[in-house]
Amino acid sequence: MQEAGRVYNFNPGPAALPLEVLQEVQREMVNYKGCGYSILEMSHRGGLFDGILAKTEATFRELMGIPADYEVLFLQGGASLQFSMLPMNLMVPGKPALYADTGTWASKAIKEAKLLGNVKVVFDGKKQGYRQIGDFSEWEGVTREASYLYICSNNTIYGTQYHFFPELDSVPLVADMSSDILSRWVNVPKFGAIFAGAQKNLGPAGLTVVILRKDLAGRAPATLPTMLKYSTHMADKSCYNTPPVFAIYVMGLVLEWVKSQGGLSAIEQVNNAKAASLYERIDATDFYAGTCEPADRSKMNVTFRIHREELEEKFVKEAAAQGLVGLKGHRSVGGMRASLYNAMPLAGVSALIDFMTAFEEKHR
Amino acid sequence: MQEAGRVYNFNPGPAALPLEVLQEVQREMVNYKGCGYSILEMSHRGGLFDGILAKTEATFRELMGIPADYEVLFLQGGASLQFSMLPMNLMVPGKPALYADTGTWASKAIKEAKLLGNVKVVFDGKKQGYRQIGDFSEWEGVTREASYLYICSNNTIYGTQYHFFPELDSVPLVADMSSDILSRWVNVPKFGAIFAGAQKNLGPAGLTVVILRKDLAGRAPATLPTMLKYSTHMADKSCYNTPPVFAIYVMGLVLEWVKSQGGLSAIEQVNNAKAASLYERIDATDFYAGTCEPADRSKMNVTFRIHREELEEKFVKEAAAQGLVGLKGHRSVGGMRASLYNAMPLAGVSALIDFMTAFEEKHR
Repeated sequence: MQEAGRVYNFNPGPAALPLEVLQEVQREMVNYKGCGYSILEMSHRGGLFDGILAKTEATFRELMGIPADYEVLFLQGGASLQFSMLPMNLMVPGKPALYADTGTWASKAIKEAKLLGNVKVVFDGKKQGYRQIGDFSEWEGVTREASYLYICSNNTIYGTQYHFFPELDSVPLVADMSSDILSRWVNVPKFGAIFAGAQKNLGPAGLTVVILRKDLAGRAPATLPTMLKYSTHMADKSCYNTPPVFAIYVMGLVLEWVKSQGGLSAIEQVNNAKAASLYERIDATDFYAGTCEPADRSKMNVTFRIHREELEEKFVKEAAAQGLVGLKGHRSVGGMRASLYNAMPLAGVSALIDFMTAFEEKHR
Repeated sequence: MQEAGRVYNFNPGPAALPLEVLQEVQREMVNYKGCGYSILEMSHRGGLFDGILAKTEATFRELMGIPADYEVLFLQGGASLQFSMLPMNLMVPGKPALYADTGTWASKAIKEAKLLGNVKVVFDGKKQGYRQIGDFSEWEGVTREASYLYICSNNTIYGTQYHFFPELDSVPLVADMSSDILSRWVNVPKFGAIFAGAQKNLGPAGLTVVILRKDLAGRAPATLPTMLKYSTHMADKSCYNTPPVFAIYVMGLVLEWVKSQGGLSAIEQVNNAKAASLYERIDATDFYAGTCEPADRSKMNVTFRIHREELEEKFVKEAAAQGLVGLKGHRSVGGMRASLYNAMPLAGVSALIDFMTAFEEKHR
């Protein structure tokens, strides 16, 4: 247990947020900075919210190094809606959309894209049980005559993560970064589009961020429904209709917290240290085993098993009793999963490692 | 000024919420009911959230009298996304969708529906500047061979509201109730579908509620994107993907507050009294004038002018200085608008009336 009776929350998302952010939300809840009403009651057409939105976007651009020819959109519907919205806007007739299938979320994106146009799966990770991402040079059917190349940068369920990004000349690279955005430095100009549900590293559920190279919005057919066109939200600065005011406000506070921690490179260093120490513990004995190819392991979602499967339920339950919650693996893969998003402190990982060692000693 | 330095917030949405609700959100923010984490960090796949979602739905069903053959869906994207999603799901080939155009939000819905299929506008309020809704018997081109009949039950911008609901045999009546849901009793079984953005009477922005007669979900074509199909969200009880957890939680608290006030009929009585006293003040002298046909006046958004237009800006400014904020009319119609959603107490309306009288005496 930590301050204020709080536990270490290893859930895969919605996930842990910095305590300082929650305390600020709490302080300001009834009367936002003395304006006389709550952030929950704030009009999205007023100066106060304009300021919150502008500052959130500016800090996000600063932290991620997003250039001026990219738009930042604050939308709703989660990454799942982007699985459709993205091909609706970016598919070019006659040019296939290339997809790498690295697990559940990529598979879902492929399913939606196939409803809308011509899709080519250039990497099928299913053959290896999604344990690896493989070399881009070995992907099959890659063509420069493509609408875009789609990847899911981190695979929450299988615990893999891209540690390279494919480059394909002028074909825009598109990434679902829901579960590792703002956890490490990425070179935004290498991408045509990046999208992410906020509920892991950015804020609460109910907000989806899209980073889009502006010229790509021009691809959308005129007949697309207004709300499903990126250009609509670009033209109205994410206020075509009422945006998720509160979630944007919390994201703004989370970004300030990232800055206070030293920015993205400092956050990345801590994330590297957290993942390295946990994988080191997993690899130290045969009691625990990682589930993925070491080269492709995720620094956000560390998946592992116990050599005697019947101990896994006990592990999850006893850990929870000690204030380490959310460690159950996804039902489709079993085992354990420790999600180490930005707001999980090194101390939380140390507490988990200590628990693992004690648990092993008891059950070896 | 009221308790906790709060003002009376007459904004059209996002809008005022009950102070008790905000205080409970504040109390529970850092550690939800002692579970060790915040509602903002809560997994949507856990028992705690299951309980919140189930209770919110049950209370909503109880308050509105929603029968078992209707589904309640908790979605994202606002009413604006429903303008597309609804025709995508409910249009039947060969049968036109009938729309009544009573102002901006209905007009936007018509624009989206026209992108998707055959639309017949059976009432065009534009001719009278959207000052009235008119008699259903005088609407033109109404046919029983229709996919559905669409209305916007309350028109936030023009200040009109339906005080009858059209009936057309087996043609499903569909209503955008964003700005008057839960403000008065409606007979849900008379409707095929009702939808509403939460940010007026239900909770914060970022949540859209859909009440749908279950059989109608079967109309959707199989090729519709998964996230845009009502049947997807029905099958997964609004948890196909991560729902807006926090907004659902706040809506649950708002519903409990409505119950504590005596339920929907008690709320409706207060709403009637609020609107009646304000319209009475408007009509009492020629200094102020309502903008709509008295028979079609909204009890949620009271729109009015001052006989000398140059005083209107002064009115809005001086009112704000006295803690009565958000009274500026929509830019497309000018004048003043007082939004009297459920959370606006009678005392707030009395304060506004007192201000109006004092303002008139000064500027008569």
